[in-house]
Amino acid sequence: MALIVQKFGGTSVANPEKIKAVADRVMKKAREGNKMVVVLSAMAGETNRFVDLAHQMQQIPDPREFDMLLATGEQVTIALFAMAVKEAGMDAISLLGDQVKIITDSRHTRARIKEIDTDMIKKYHDEGKIVVVAGFQGVTEDDHITTLGRGGSDTTAVALAAALKADVCEIFTDVDGVYTTDPNICKKAKKIDRITYDEMLELASLGAKVLDIRSVSFAKRYKVPLHVRSTFTDTEGTWVVEEDQQMESLPVSGVTYNKNEARITISKVPDTPGTASKIFTPIADAGIVVDVIIQNTRSGELTDMTFTVPLTDYDQAMKIVAKVAKDINAESFSGDKDIAKVSIVGVGMRNHAGIATTMFRVLAEEGINILMISTSEIKVSCVIEEKYTELAVRSLHDAFGLDKDTK
Amino acid sequence: MALIVQKFGGTSVANPEKIKAVADRVMKKAREGNKMVVVLSAMAGETNRFVDLAHQMQQIPDPREFDMLLATGEQVTIALFAMAVKEAGMDAISLLGDQVKIITDSRHTRARIKEIDTDMIKKYHDEGKIVVVAGFQGVTEDDHITTLGRGGSDTTAVALAAALKADVCEIFTDVDGVYTTDPNICKKAKKIDRITYDEMLELASLGAKVLDIRSVSFAKRYKVPLHVRSTFTDTEGTWVVEEDQQMESLPVSGVTYNKNEARITISKVPDTPGTASKIFTPIADAGIVVDVIIQNTRSGELTDMTFTVPLTDYDQAMKIVAKVAKDINAESFSGDKDIAKVSIVGVGMRNHAGIATTMFRVLAEEGINILMISTSEIKVSCVIEEKYTELAVRSLHDAFGLDKDTK
Repeated sequence: MALIVQKFGGTSVANPEKIKAVADRVMKKAREGNKMVVVLSAMAGETNRFVDLAHQMQQIPDPREFDMLLATGEQVTIALFAMAVKEAGMDAISLLGDQVKIITDSRHTRARIKEIDTDMIKKYHDEGKIVVVAGFQGVTEDDHITTLGRGGSDTTAVALAAALKADVCEIFTDVDGVYTTDPNICKKAKKIDRITYDEMLELASLGAKVLDIRSVSFAKRYKVPLHVRSTFTDTEGTWVVEEDQQMESLPVSGVTYNKNEARITISKVPDTPGTASKIFTPIADAGIVVDVIIQNTRSGELTDMTFTVPLTDYDQAMKIVAKVAKDINAESFSGDKDIAKVSIVGVGMRNHAGIATTMFRVLAEEGINILMISTSEIKVSCVIEEKYTELAVRSLHDAFGLDKDTK
Repeated sequence: MALIVQKFGGTSVANPEKIKAVADRVMKKAREGNKMVVVLSAMAGETNRFVDLAHQMQQIPDPREFDMLLATGEQVTIALFAMAVKEAGMDAISLLGDQVKIITDSRHTRARIKEIDTDMIKKYHDEGKIVVVAGFQGVTEDDHITTLGRGGSDTTAVALAAALKADVCEIFTDVDGVYTTDPNICKKAKKIDRITYDEMLELASLGAKVLDIRSVSFAKRYKVPLHVRSTFTDTEGTWVVEEDQQMESLPVSGVTYNKNEARITISKVPDTPGTASKIFTPIADAGIVVDVIIQNTRSGELTDMTFTVPLTDYDQAMKIVAKVAKDINAESFSGDKDIAKVSIVGVGMRNHAGIATTMFRVLAEEGINILMISTSEIKVSCVIEEKYTELAVRSLHDAFGLDKDTK
C-alpha cells in the first residue's frame, strides 16, 4: 500500500468522457489499496476563456480578481471528478486550495507555496476517500485566493507529495515521458527511463516543456520521486529521481534547443569598472531576463558585450541599449533575432573529459558557426544561427549515442 | 449617506457588456457617497450548463459536489464585476460566501443561513471599496461550500442587508416591480408602489415569481426595506415594507394564480378518527407537499376528502392514493389536472367585510364554478377549472378596482 499523488493536466480532463476515463484510472489504483490524492487542472480551453473574459472587463486585469476568476476552472473539474468516482461506487471528496490550506504568499497570479496543511487530506484518507485537490491554486494567510502561475498544477502535485511524504508523484501528460530530444525534429529521439532532478531542471530551463521548472526544483528539494507518464497508456514514463550510480553510463542525457531568444551585441565598449552594471541594470529594471552573457576583451582596453534576451522582449531591450550605448561611449550596437540556443545536458559529463570539445567538433563538421558558448557543471549551450537548429540537434543526438538503447 | 445592498440576477449580468452597465449603475450610487454591497448571481445560462455537466457525471449528482460546482458561477461574475469597477477607476473587492463567512447549515443545495460575519465587509467599506459578494452560496462551520437553493441570491442580499442593518435592499430584476396581477394575462395590471411583507409572502407563495419567498420572510423578520426594481430603467419599483396606515385604502392588493397544481378527491371515506392521518402521512413521506385540503362530511358518517398537490407530483400521489383508498375502505377516488388556483391578496381585507363574498359573486357572474375554497387572514383562494383562469383574473382585477390609480 502506497500513498500516490497523481496530477492530470487540462487535456486529460477536457470533457466529461475524459474525466470519467481518468477517474477509472485513479480508482484502479485505489482498489489496489493505495491512498490516492488526485490533482487536476482546469478543463482544456477554460483558462483561455477566462483570460478572454477578463480582458473584456479590464485592460490589465486586477491580479487578485484575476485569481478569483481563474481558480473557478479547477473547482469545476474537481467537483465533476468526485461525482464520477461516486457514480462508480467509490468514495471521493473534492478540496479547494483554501480547504486543504495550501498557504501561499500574496503575489497574485504567480504565488509561491509557503506551507501545506495535511490534516484534512489525512482525515479523508482515513475515511477511505479518494481526495481530489484543485491544482494551480492556494490561499494567502488572510484568505485571498491565489494562483501559482504557469505550470502551477505540477507544483501543487509535487508540493502535496512532499508534504504528505508520498511514495511517488505521477505527472500525467499527453506525451509518454521525457525524451532525449524533441521527437518532432529528431525521429531517433528516445524516451528517457530515468533522469536526475538536476538534468531535468536544466532541460526544463532550456526549453523542454514536459515539466514546470518550479515543480522539479520542489521535487529535488524534498526528494519526491517524480514519474512523468502518459494519460492514454499504461507504459512506464520517465522517472525523475536523485542521482545514482547506474545513471552515468552516458555522459549526455538529452539535447534541447530554444528558438525564443535574440542576441544583442554592444561593440567597443570602454573596459572600465561598472560598465556591465550600467548596461544590465536598466534592462533588469524593465523586467527583462538576460540569459547568456559573453564579454570579449579587445586590445586597447575596449570590449564587446554580447547577451541574449527573450524574443518577446527584444524590441524593448534594443531601445534601452540604444540609450545605454550612448551613455557609455560604445562605438556601436547590433541585434540578431535569427538565433537559437542548442544545449546538451547530462550529469555524466562531470566524469567525462572532452564533452564540450566533442560538441564544438560536431557543430564544426556540419559547418555550423558557434556565436556564443555558455556552460554549467552539467550542460553546454551554444548559440548558433537559427536555420541550423534541426541539423545541430540531430547531429549532436547521434554523436552522443542517444539513439542507442541503454537498458 | 446610506448603506445600500443591491442584488442583480443572472439576466442582468449575462455578458461583459451587461456587467459593465450594472457596474456603472452601482458606481453612480457609490459616487453619491453611499456604502455599497453588490450581490450577484451567475451569468444567465451558466447554472444550466453546470447542471448539464453534473448529470453527465452522475445520475443524481452528489449534493456536496454539486454545490462545489454550482458555486463557481457566482465566483466568475463577482471577479469580472470587480474588474469592471477598477477599470472605471473606482475600487472594489469580490468576496465569496466563505470569505464573508456566510455560515449555513449543511443541507447541501438548499442550505439555510445561520449567521453572517460583517467584519470583513465593514473593513472594506472603511477602505472605500465597493464590496461585491457572491450570491447563492455559503459555507458550513467545517468549511464545506453550500448553496441556498432556488432564489438563493435574493436571500443572500436580504440576509446581508439585515446583518449590516442596511438602509435598503434593492432587488434588481427584468421587470420593474410587483404587479397587481400578471401583466401577460391582464393588460390593466399596474405596478404596486408599496406592499407589505405579508402580502408579498402570500403573492410569492401563490405563484408570483418576482421575489423568492425565503428572502421575503427574512426581510420581514429583520424589517429590511426591500425595493424591487428594474435593472434597465431608473424608475422606482415596488417597495416591500412593514404595514402602515396609508396602505389600507384598497382591500385587495393583488390577484394571482397558479396552474401548476392538480386536485385529488377520495369519495365516501368512513369518517373515523385517524382517517386524515392515514391519507396524508404516506403522501408526506413521499416528499409531496399538499396545498389546499377540503373535507366535506356527507350524511351517514361518510366524508369526501379533496386536496391539491403540485402537478409534477400528481402521478406519484395518485399511486399512493390508490393504495390508501383501499386501506381505508373509501368508495372511490379521482383526480383532475385541469385546475387552477386563483387568489386575491391584501392586508386591507382584514378591515373590509365581504371581500370573499365579492370574489365568489364575481366568479359566479362569469359562470365560473368554484371547486375548492381556502382562506387566510389576508387572502382568499378559489380552485376553478383551468380554462377559466384568465377570465377569473381579469374579472377580479376589475372588480376590486386594481386598474385604478391609487397614488
